[in-house]
Amino acid sequence: MAMMKAAVFVEPGRIELQDKRIPDIGPNDALVRITTTTICGTDVHILKGEYPVATGLTIGHEPVGIIEKLGSNVQGYQEGQRVIAGAICPSFTSYACQDGVSSQDGGCSCHGYKPMGGWRLGNTIDGTQAEYVLVPDAQANLAPVPDGLSDEQVLMCPDIMSTGFVGAEAANIRIGDIVVIFAQGPIGLCATAGAKLRGASTIIAVDGVDSRLEIARNLGADVTLNFRNVDVVDEILKLTGGRGVDVAIEALGLQSTFESALRVLKPGGTLSSLGVYSSDLVLPLGAIHAGLGDNKIITSLCPGGKERMRRLLNIVASGRIDLAPLVTHEYKLDNIVDAYDLFANQRDGVLKVAIKP
Amino acid sequence: MAMMKAAVFVEPGRIELQDKRIPDIGPNDALVRITTTTICGTDVHILKGEYPVATGLTIGHEPVGIIEKLGSNVQGYQEGQRVIAGAICPSFTSYACQDGVSSQDGGCSCHGYKPMGGWRLGNTIDGTQAEYVLVPDAQANLAPVPDGLSDEQVLMCPDIMSTGFVGAEAANIRIGDIVVIFAQGPIGLCATAGAKLRGASTIIAVDGVDSRLEIARNLGADVTLNFRNVDVVDEILKLTGGRGVDVAIEALGLQSTFESALRVLKPGGTLSSLGVYSSDLVLPLGAIHAGLGDNKIITSLCPGGKERMRRLLNIVASGRIDLAPLVTHEYKLDNIVDAYDLFANQRDGVLKVAIKP
Amino acid sequence: MAMMKAAVFVEPGRIELQDKRIPDIGPNDALVRITTTTICGTDVHILKGEYPVATGLTIGHEPVGIIEKLGSNVQGYQEGQRVIAGAICPSFTSYACQDGVSSQDGGCSCHGYKPMGGWRLGNTIDGTQAEYVLVPDAQANLAPVPDGLSDEQVLMCPDIMSTGFVGAEAANIRIGDIVVIFAQGPIGLCATAGAKLRGASTIIAVDGVDSRLEIARNLGADVTLNFRNVDVVDEILKLTGGRGVDVAIEALGLQSTFESALRVLKPGGTLSSLGVYSSDLVLPLGAIHAGLGDNKIITSLCPGGKERMRRLLNIVASGRIDLAPLVTHEYKLDNIVDAYDLFANQRDGVLKVAIKP
Amino acid sequence: MAMMKAAVFVEPGRIELQDKRIPDIGPNDALVRITTTTICGTDVHILKGEYPVATGLTIGHEPVGIIEKLGSNVQGYQEGQRVIAGAICPSFTSYACQDGVSSQDGGCSCHGYKPMGGWRLGNTIDGTQAEYVLVPDAQANLAPVPDGLSDEQVLMCPDIMSTGFVGAEAANIRIGDIVVIFAQGPIGLCATAGAKLRGASTIIAVDGVDSRLEIARNLGADVTLNFRNVDVVDEILKLTGGRGVDVAIEALGLQSTFESALRVLKPGGTLSSLGVYSSDLVLPLGAIHAGLGDNKIITSLCPGGKERMRRLLNIVASGRIDLAPLVTHEYKLDNIVDAYDLFANQRDGVLKVAIKP
Repeated sequence: MAMMKAAVFVEPGRIELQDKRIPDIGPNDALVRITTTTICGTDVHILKGEYPVATGLTIGHEPVGIIEKLGSNVQGYQEGQRVIAGAICPSFTSYACQDGVSSQDGGCSCHGYKPMGGWRLGNTIDGTQAEYVLVPDAQANLAPVPDGLSDEQVLMCPDIMSTGFVGAEAANIRIGDIVVIFAQGPIGLCATAGAKLRGASTIIAVDGVDSRLEIARNLGADVTLNFRNVDVVDEILKLTGGRGVDVAIEALGLQSTFESALRVLKPGGTLSSLGVYSSDLVLPLGAIHAGLGDNKIITSLCPGGKERMRRLLNIVASGRIDLAPLVTHEYKLDNIVDAYDLFANQRDGVLKVAIKP
Repeated sequence: MAMMKAAVFVEPGRIELQDKRIPDIGPNDALVRITTTTICGTDVHILKGEYPVATGLTIGHEPVGIIEKLGSNVQGYQEGQRVIAGAICPSFTSYACQDGVSSQDGGCSCHGYKPMGGWRLGNTIDGTQAEYVLVPDAQANLAPVPDGLSDEQVLMCPDIMSTGFVGAEAANIRIGDIVVIFAQGPIGLCATAGAKLRGASTIIAVDGVDSRLEIARNLGADVTLNFRNVDVVDEILKLTGGRGVDVAIEALGLQSTFESALRVLKPGGTLSSLGVYSSDLVLPLGAIHAGLGDNKIITSLCPGGKERMRRLLNIVASGRIDLAPLVTHEYKLDNIVDAYDLFANQRDGVLKVAIKP
Repeated sequence: MAMMKAAVFVEPGRIELQDKRIPDIGPNDALVRITTTTICGTDVHILKGEYPVATGLTIGHEPVGIIEKLGSNVQGYQEGQRVIAGAICPSFTSYACQDGVSSQDGGCSCHGYKPMGGWRLGNTIDGTQAEYVLVPDAQANLAPVPDGLSDEQVLMCPDIMSTGFVGAEAANIRIGDIVVIFAQGPIGLCATAGAKLRGASTIIAVDGVDSRLEIARNLGADVTLNFRNVDVVDEILKLTGGRGVDVAIEALGLQSTFESALRVLKPGGTLSSLGVYSSDLVLPLGAIHAGLGDNKIITSLCPGGKERMRRLLNIVASGRIDLAPLVTHEYKLDNIVDAYDLFANQRDGVLKVAIKP
Repeated sequence: MAMMKAAVFVEPGRIELQDKRIPDIGPNDALVRITTTTICGTDVHILKGEYPVATGLTIGHEPVGIIEKLGSNVQGYQEGQRVIAGAICPSFTSYACQDGVSSQDGGCSCHGYKPMGGWRLGNTIDGTQAEYVLVPDAQANLAPVPDGLSDEQVLMCPDIMSTGFVGAEAANIRIGDIVVIFAQGPIGLCATAGAKLRGASTIIAVDGVDSRLEIARNLGADVTLNFRNVDVVDEILKLTGGRGVDVAIEALGLQSTFESALRVLKPGGTLSSLGVYSSDLVLPLGAIHAGLGDNKIITSLCPGGKERMRRLLNIVASGRIDLAPLVTHEYKLDNIVDAYDLFANQRDGVLKVAIKP
C-alpha cells in the first residue's frame, strides 16, 4: 500500500525497477506523484558508473506531477495541484543561495557552498524515475503548471531548457550578437532557442547529425554546419569575415568542441560552457591571445527554484518556443530499462524519452 | 634640430639609444615631449625577442610629458600642457571600441577587431622611451595631469595601475568579498590596491619575496603568504574554512599560479587573469568541477583612453593610493641600456624604474 | 551645380524647401547623397517651435544614402558605397563617449558631456531632409547596408528602432519577464519588438488606436489594451494577479502614461522611459512605495554609432523583425511640406513617411 | 518565568515598556536573547503615528544577541552562539526572493511580492526592543558574530550599514567616480563610507550640521558642504567644472534633497535614493533633460539575510570602517522611553543609541 515502483541504481551498468517505500515527508517537504519524467544524459553517466551515486538510489531529476501531500510548513499550494520542480532544488537559505549561486547550495556544510550541491534529486536523495518523489524545501521549489499545457510541453523545463537557456543568459547575449552553439543535442538545441530569445541576429548551430541541425533551424539557427562536411573553425571565421563570434556556447563536454569554441571567439568574446567534461581542458596559447584578448570563459550549471520554473513555464505558455519535437519516444515506467537501452545507445534518432508511471 | 634620442629595438638581446627624426604629426595626432617614462615587463619580453616587434622601433608605452604640438583637428588642449596617455591608445571609432572592447581596437582591419590592437606605442608605432612621442588619435587619448602631482606619482597610470585595477574591476569585486592576488610584482601590487578600492573585506597577497609582500600589506593586503614557506592552496582553503575565495587574480602568467588561482575559487567564484602567458594553459578537471561549478575565467588587457586616465589620475590626486614606493630607481634616458640591464635581471629589489630624457 | 534642395526651419510653424550649398567636408567627415529619409516626431516639435533650433537649419536625422565623398582621414569605406548613419552621431572620442554615454557627447565643452550632445544632425548641424548631408566623425558613424535590403527596410535603424530597442535593453529584460509598453507609435512599436527580442514571455501593448495595437500584435505583443475601453492599470494588475510587471516602458512622454507605468510595476521592477516630456513629472508617493520599493527609473536617448547601426542592420537582415509596415506613406523631397502636414496632424493612419530626394 | 520586558507601540505618541510572553518558536524559527539593540528613524515615525503598526507590537529591528533556542529544522548553529540578524528578514523562498529582490518578499501573498515585505521585525511581527526576539526563517537569517567584535561594533550591520552601503552598490559606483551624498545622518554617513569602499575618487558630503560633516570626513568624504553656508547645487557644479557628478545619493527623504541630487547629475549619471519620503516627488523637466539625459533613479531598501550580514561583519572585522563613533549614547531597556525622547528630538548631538536589556 505504501509501496511504489522506482528505477534504482544497483551497480555500474545496471539500473533496475524495484519496489520501494513511498517516502514520509517532513514539515518543509512535499510528496509529488509523478505523471511524466525523463532520462537525462547525466543518468547515462550514472548508469555507466562514470558518475558515482549510492547503491539503491532512485535515479532521475525531471519531475512533472501532482502534489500528493504537503509538509506542515508549506503554504500557498494545494494537494492535487499540478506542478513541476527544477532538476536543481536548492534550499535558498544557504550562504551560496543568498550569494546568487543557488545551484552550488551547500546547505550547512562547507560554509554553505558545495559544487553542484543544489542538485539533490537522483544524486544525493531519491529521484523522479518512480511513482512518487519527495521534493525538499518545497516552498522554494514547487511551480504550478499553467492550465492547458501538456506534460510533454513542460517536461523540458526542469533541466534541459533551464540549462540551455542559461548558456545564452550567462554569456549576456545582446541584440545583434553573432552566436555559435557547438553540439545540438537536447541542451544545445535549447541553447540555440535561448540565443534567439535573447536577441542574437546570427545563430550558427554545429553538429554532426543533419536531423538535429534541422531541428536547430526550427528553433532559431540561421546557419547550420555539419562538422563532418566542413572545417567548422575556418567556416565560422569566413562567415564572420575574420572577426569571430560574440558568443560561443559549448554544449557537449569535449576538448575538441571547447577548443573550437575558443578559436572562433572575437577578441572580447565570451565562451559559455554547458558541457560536462570528463578530462582536463587545454587552453591553447594562441586561442587565448596569451591572456590579453579580453575574453571570458563561463561555466554554468542548470538554475532551479520555482521562480526559474515559473519563467520557463511562461515561455512555453506564450508559445515562444515549442520543444515538443524533442520528445521522440514514450515508455511506461515499467519498461524504463528498455528506455535506458535506447537512450544510452542513441538509437532510432532519440532526443528525449517521456517516462510515464 | 629635428632629431631626438630614442631607445630602439635592434635585434633580440639588443635595445640601444639611437638618433631619430622627431616625428611629423597628422591632423588627429599630438607630439608630446617626454619628461618621464618607464620600462615594463613587456619591454623585457621585446628585448629578449620573446615578443616580436619591427627592427628600428622605439620601445616604451608609458608616457608622462608636455604637449609640444597639436594636430589641426585636436581641440580643447594647449601646447605646453602637462599630459599623460594610456599604454593602450585606441582610436575609439572602430567597431571594437564602440562594442566596449577598445583595447582590442582593430581600426579598419578584421572588421575593426585585432587582439591587443589598441596597444600601439612601442608595439606597432614608435614608443615613449625617447625625447618625443607621437600620440595617435590625440583627442581621445591625451589626459591633463592635475596640478600638484609629480611625474613619479602619475607614472603608473598609463599601464601598471590601469592593468592592476582592471583585474579587480573585471571580476566585479563586491563589498565583503574575499580576494587573493597571485604574484606581487608591480601589476599584482596594483591589483591588490584595486581589490581594496572595490571593497574586498579580506585580501590575501601571494608572492615569494617578503619585501614585496610588505608593500602589498601597505597597499591593502590583510594576509600575506610567501609560497616558499607554505602550501598556498591549502593555506587559503584553511583561511576560508574550506569555502574558497570569491575572486582570485592571477598577475604573473604561469600555469602554476593560474592553476592555484582556480583551485582556491569557491563554486561560483571568478578567476581574473592579468598575466601574459607563454604556453598553453591547463584547466584540471577537478578544479573546474567538470564544468559545473558556475565559475568564470576572465582575461583582461590594460584599458586606455583619456577617460580611464582621468579616473586614475583622480584616484592619485585624492590620496587614496600612493604608488610612489613602486618607483625604486631613476635613470637618464642616456643610460637606458643600464636600466634595462637592472630591470631585466630584477636586481637590487627593483620594482619600477623612472627614465628621464 | 554645387547647390541642393533642403528642408529648412524658417520660423515656428514653417519648414520650407530651399536651395543650399552642398557642404564642403573636412578630413574626418563624409558627404552622403540621401536616397531616403523620414520625418520624426521630434521634427514636428521643431516645426511647432516647441524645440528650438537655429533659423536656416536643415531638419532631419535619419539618413539612408550613398557615400559621395570621403574626408582624407576616413578609411575602410568607398565612395559609391550604400550606408546609413545613426540619428545620434557621436565623436566617440570625448570623455562622455569613453564613459559609456556617447549619446550625451559634449565634445570639448563641459568636460565632454552635454545633454543630448550626440544628436547633431538636424539639431546643431544641417540634417538629412536634403539631397546631401555631411556626416561628422564619419569613421565612427558610417555603417554599410548589407546587400539585398531596401531603403525602406533599413530606414528605421537610425532612430526609431535604436530608440525602441534601447527601452528594452536599458531595462535589462530577462527571459520570462512580463513587460508592458505604453503607447504604440513608431517608437513604442519598436520597443514592443525589442521586448520580444530580449525574451519577455508576456508583452502587453497599450494604445488608444486599434490599428496600432494590431501592428503591436504582429511585432510581438501577447496582450493589447485600448485605454479607451479599459482602466489600464487595473487591467494589468488583474492580468498579473496583483504582482505587477517586471518592466514598464513609457514611449509617449506624458505624465499620465509615466504614472501608469509606475503604478503597474512590481516591487523591484523597472520603468524604462523613452518619451520626450514637456512638463515636470510627478512620482506619486504610493507608486514609489515611499522610496522603499527597490524600483528603478531609467531614461534613455537613442544610441548611435556604426556598431549600433551594424547590429540593427543585421537584425533586419536576419528577418527577425519586419518594420516595413511602419512606412505607410511616401513623398518626394519636393513635397516635404505636404508630408509634414500629414505627419504633424497624424492623418490617414500615418506611422512613418519615406522622403525621397 | 516565561515573561519578558518589551517596548510596545500603544498609540501615536506612546511607546512603553510592557511585560510580554517570551514567544514560542516553530521549526524554522530561532529565539534570540537580545544583548544590544537600537532605535531607528523609522521607529520614530512609528512612535509619531506616521507609519502605522498594530497596537501592542514590539518595536525595533536591529538585533545583537545570543541564540537561546533553535527550531527543530534549523541546522548549523548552536544555542549560546552570538549572532545578529538583518532588519530585513526575508524567507528567501518566495518568488520575489528568488527573483533578486528579497527585501520585497511577499511570502505566499500577491504572487510572492509585497512592498517592504521582507521587513518583519518591529513591523508585522514583534521586534527587537525586548529581552528576547523570535527570528523567523532563522536558517536564512542568523549570522554568527566573529570573535573579538563588541556589540557596539556590529550594531550598525542589521540596518544602517546595510542601507547606506546599498546606496553605493545600487548606483554601481566605479573606480574614479565623483559621488555626492545628501544628508549625513547615520544612513548618509554609511553611504559616504560605502562610496569610499567602492572606489569613488571624490566624495562630497552635504549636511547642515558641522559635527556630522566632520564624521563624514573621517569616513571618507573629500569635500564637505554645509547647505546653511553655500548653494549646494552651484557649488557642486563648480567643483566638477560644470560636468556634474557620476552618482548622487539621497539619504534623507525630502523633495529638496531629491531635487538637488537630480540637478547635480551629469548626463548619464545615477541618483541612488535611500530616503523614506512622505509626499509625492517632482522631477523638474530641466533636471531630467526632458527624459533624454540617460539618467537613472534607483530606490533601495536595506538588504537582509545572513550572507549580507556576514559580508558586513567581515568589513567591520577587517577594520576597513569604524562605525563606533556613531553610537553616541547608551540606555538600559528599562529606560527606553527616555531614549526615544532623546532620539526623536535629536538632542545632545545624538546619532545612534545603544539599548541594553
